[in-house]
Amino acid sequence: MYMTASKHAVVIVGYGGMGSYHAKLIQGHPKLEVTGTFDLLEGRREASREDGYPAYDSYEAVLQDAAVEVILIATPNDVHKELAVQAFQAGKHVICEKPVTLSVEDFHIMVTAAKEAGRTLMVHQNRRWDEDFRVVTQMYRENTIGELFRIESRVHGANGIPGDWRHLEEFGGGMLLDWGVHLLDQLLYMIDSRILRLSSRLSFILGNGVDDGFEAMLEFENGISAVVEVGTTNFITLPRWYVKGTEGTGVIEDWSLQGRTVTRNPDMAHVEPKPIQAGVGLTKTMAPPSEEATITGTLPEAFHMPCSFFDNFAEVIEGKAEPIVKNEEVLRVLHLIDAIFQAARTGETLKDFDLYPAAPTV
Amino acid sequence: MYMTASKHAVVIVGYGGMGSYHAKLIQGHPKLEVTGTFDLLEGRREASREDGYPAYDSYEAVLQDAAVEVILIATPNDVHKELAVQAFQAGKHVICEKPVTLSVEDFHIMVTAAKEAGRTLMVHQNRRWDEDFRVVTQMYRENTIGELFRIESRVHGANGIPGDWRHLEEFGGGMLLDWGVHLLDQLLYMIDSRILRLSSRLSFILGNGVDDGFEAMLEFENGISAVVEVGTTNFITLPRWYVKGTEGTGVIEDWSLQGRTVTRNPDMAHVEPKPIQAGVGLTKTMAPPSEEATITGTLPEAFHMPCSFFDNFAEVIEGKAEPIVKNEEVLRVLHLIDAIFQAARTGETLKDFDLYPAAPTV
Repeated sequence: MYMTASKHAVVIVGYGGMGSYHAKLIQGHPKLEVTGTFDLLEGRREASREDGYPAYDSYEAVLQDAAVEVILIATPNDVHKELAVQAFQAGKHVICEKPVTLSVEDFHIMVTAAKEAGRTLMVHQNRRWDEDFRVVTQMYRENTIGELFRIESRVHGANGIPGDWRHLEEFGGGMLLDWGVHLLDQLLYMIDSRILRLSSRLSFILGNGVDDGFEAMLEFENGISAVVEVGTTNFITLPRWYVKGTEGTGVIEDWSLQGRTVTRNPDMAHVEPKPIQAGVGLTKTMAPPSEEATITGTLPEAFHMPCSFFDNFAEVIEGKAEPIVKNEEVLRVLHLIDAIFQAARTGETLKDFDLYPAAPTV
Repeated sequence: MYMTASKHAVVIVGYGGMGSYHAKLIQGHPKLEVTGTFDLLEGRREASREDGYPAYDSYEAVLQDAAVEVILIATPNDVHKELAVQAFQAGKHVICEKPVTLSVEDFHIMVTAAKEAGRTLMVHQNRRWDEDFRVVTQMYRENTIGELFRIESRVHGANGIPGDWRHLEEFGGGMLLDWGVHLLDQLLYMIDSRILRLSSRLSFILGNGVDDGFEAMLEFENGISAVVEVGTTNFITLPRWYVKGTEGTGVIEDWSLQGRTVTRNPDMAHVEPKPIQAGVGLTKTMAPPSEEATITGTLPEAFHMPCSFFDNFAEVIEGKAEPIVKNEEVLRVLHLIDAIFQAARTGETLKDFDLYPAAPTV
């Protein structure tokens, strides 16, 4: 099965929506090649063969195939750990879909197994590469609207939870584990500071056993306050990103990168605003600034990532690079997710819980 | 000075922006008439005379004028209590600007003085009459987008705190006391339920001694969660109202009542959404619903208030009506403001603090 000597053979385990998407992503990669798949369902094995990827008959067969270097796990979340540990024991590297595990303990077991086998575990926190996120990262790093002090990150849908395992608790369903893990990973990847305070709320509007959305309010030691929110009952969406800096405000409406910045015009002296009628009252405070007092601008270029997730992964297993998605960062996010569940359950504000700075996991 | 026998004579104390606005509001009222004003500043006394309202030389002179029935207090917040207590002792009724006092204790003193004098104290919580708020009230009462479970109420400005006493703590400045008291009063007036949990954050971006904004997260016993937010460093505004019901979502952009509702189309069977590309990943959950699956509608008519603030006040002092703005409701809001300050200061979530049901103050 090791068809191209210069490429690392990858087998995708779980050939559903994400698994087949991974196959497309890896297609044409100079160093990685999908050489097969495995799925429990015959229908998906059939789909894999139709897509040109041989389907193994069993996971055992994948593990015993010495030509396979990398297992890419894209199954429901509850079996990530078991599949990964077996892969490491068989001497394979592992790329694992997010959320990597349902508990911090399970992640420790995975990381330990990887270390004992001398193999690489990298979690597919791909949304660090999302352009919208990298635009905000650029604003944060380069102070394009002054120093950021407020970051609101939201994804809103109106479809409820997709009708598969994602609405079942035992498979690791729910929106905090699904979209939450992305938004939280982005935030912690960008902001190099300790979380001082956390409060949160889970939403159970749809009557599933899992959360159909959540909001988390975080305060960082460096002064940034953040809101992270996921909703699946939002027929009108609020902006994907809403950020405030000391010189202005930025908004990114959606993944199409529609958005803008509005900043203070430094060439204009401060003019006390004139009161406007608002409802049955007057307001000076909430009167819009005069047109000359502000500058409407375009979003900055996105922060540049040196290489793609898969480029980086190939270099890591070749011993040429450090992983961009570090396991200690993944652990910190898992730990934060646990804290968000706890804060919501108890209705308390949590302090002194953050694993910062992210320390080596083993 | 009692120019029209059939009208109640009102003297406005504090002839700044709000005082002169009140004079305009009362102009032509069938039962109330502004017969004069008092202000400490000669410039404002001059402005009052130019507007056609005689200016008293001292507050003492106002109090001693037997023709004056009503004192309307529109001064900075720190002197409301003192002025009101003197007014009651002189046998006058009082309309007081918001926030009525800087502490619950001061409000008790005012209410006690009113009761001892057998006179009326009504706080000018005029934004209960705001059309945007009454539209939301209609949605809440009539379930026009299903049962509401989420209410987000925001006012965003970019002017900082106006450059007068409102940025000084000793005068009762700060945004929680200024705009916060309105938004909180609206929320508690609409939702007849106990607040179970509260967390909050004050903003001190502008370097004033007072908050330049705040956010409060409230959870009510009836299942509604609410966000109340005021910002003065927001160069781009989020919607004035964002509300979610079991059948859809509603948004009111601003005081011009631009807005819409989007609700589930009950005639369409549920169709599992198709994944869309979002950033570097796919998402089924956040794919927009198909056009036929939802209905975009207009905002409902505003909830109808039986009479205006001043109509109601006149009937109250004539013994013909109960006040729409009840002092026990004002007390509950003041108490909530105290709790928001406390929750922000301590970084804790507060429980078991709400004065519900609002009980008579004395």
